[in-house]
Amino acid sequence: MVLQYEGTRYNGWQKQGNTTNTIQGKIEEILSKLTEESVEIHGSGRTDVGVHARGQVANVHLKKEWKEERLRKKLNQFLPEDIRILQVEKVDQRFHSRLNAVKKQYNYYIETGEKRDVFSRRTVYDYGRALNIDAMKEAAEQLIGTHDYKSFCGNRKMKKSTVRTIESINIEERGSVLVIEVVGDGFLQNMVRILVGTLIEVGEGIRKPNSMSEILESKERKNAGETAPAKGLCLEMVVY
Amino acid sequence: MVLQYEGTRYNGWQKQGNTTNTIQGKIEEILSKLTEESVEIHGSGRTDVGVHARGQVANVHLKKEWKEERLRKKLNQFLPEDIRILQVEKVDQRFHSRLNAVKKQYNYYIETGEKRDVFSRRTVYDYGRALNIDAMKEAAEQLIGTHDYKSFCGNRKMKKSTVRTIESINIEERGSVLVIEVVGDGFLQNMVRILVGTLIEVGEGIRKPNSMSEILESKERKNAGETAPAKGLCLEMVVY
Repeated sequence: MVLQYEGTRYNGWQKQGNTTNTIQGKIEEILSKLTEESVEIHGSGRTDVGVHARGQVANVHLKKEWKEERLRKKLNQFLPEDIRILQVEKVDQRFHSRLNAVKKQYNYYIETGEKRDVFSRRTVYDYGRALNIDAMKEAAEQLIGTHDYKSFCGNRKMKKSTVRTIESINIEERGSVLVIEVVGDGFLQNMVRILVGTLIEVGEGIRKPNSMSEILESKERKNAGETAPAKGLCLEMVVY
Repeated sequence: MVLQYEGTRYNGWQKQGNTTNTIQGKIEEILSKLTEESVEIHGSGRTDVGVHARGQVANVHLKKEWKEERLRKKLNQFLPEDIRILQVEKVDQRFHSRLNAVKKQYNYYIETGEKRDVFSRRTVYDYGRALNIDAMKEAAEQLIGTHDYKSFCGNRKMKKSTVRTIESINIEERGSVLVIEVVGDGFLQNMVRILVGTLIEVGEGIRKPNSMSEILESKERKNAGETAPAKGLCLEMVVY
């Protein structure tokens, strides 16, 4: 299933330990009631507390046969207003939304004017100052490619590989909102938010655009910028 | 000043009697504190409880001179997140935002699919069924022009003229959302919402498209359709 959600009210996507009020948990609860089966859904990746999605993908194994459209409508009927199933599709038994994902796109939205559009205030970071976009674009160029992104990983105890490939980082102005689109094969914990936080510091003139390679090479989280707030981040698309 | 607001949390635009928590009241409160003057702002028209605006216009008379940009920024700083001043401009002493308005545009947003986009759920009416758009367009044609819109007036005790001119009604599909754009020289209480409610009944097949003239001629509120919910309505633009 492909789904969208406004993350504001939730403790992120994933159920972990005693965490209640997660998006995964909410969908499992409704789906279990509907199907009268004990179900577990698998997301393409967890999104943090307060992060949104326009194209999250999740899969579930059901014993009983369901018509796709009927299941989608039933789910939407019982899910709260801030979670919406866009598409339900039957897939191969072996499909796994996380393991089979080949590419993901995250967008980060920054208001550079003094106040956000009232209708998108929950999904835009209210930064409130102009940024040097050319400098940010120059820095972004250095962050593209296959690198060890350890410096941009929020989990200091990460034991697995921190090598990822970023295919592109596009920075676009939509009125006074800066949209940073990041496409890659996978992302470490908080990685997009740390990348954005670092680019903002470049845009502020606190960091030089050509210092990105050094940060990458150092493999030290402390050398990268601050983690940008969750509310500006949205998982836009997962490609299989 | 030109301003936008999400009306969800407010008791409409206008302060009336003991009504607290209005948008007008909120702006006056902040503006009075800022300017240390007792101010009253005049809107281009009242919007009902729950109705939104992307381009409301209001004017105020201040004794002290202010730089436009400074006043705009200060107001935005102190106003809540759901009210935003887009523009502040010095105008002629005799300017009146209501009396000088020559044209207004209201849009009404209807979700015809089974669930709304999660990010615009506060500004779209969750109708949830497909509508016959051709029939609605045909009916809309009959509602254009200079007419006595008494049948479409929510105030049964209205003593002033109920004659208005509707310049255009455009009905546009944006994905599964139907947008009804109404442009006219002025609108009666609840008029756009009653027009939309009537058009929805045409789209449902409950009313015939060619019955609009009869409704207008009858000058009876009971002959028109239901008042569509406030949340789908937005004051988009006021022209002077």
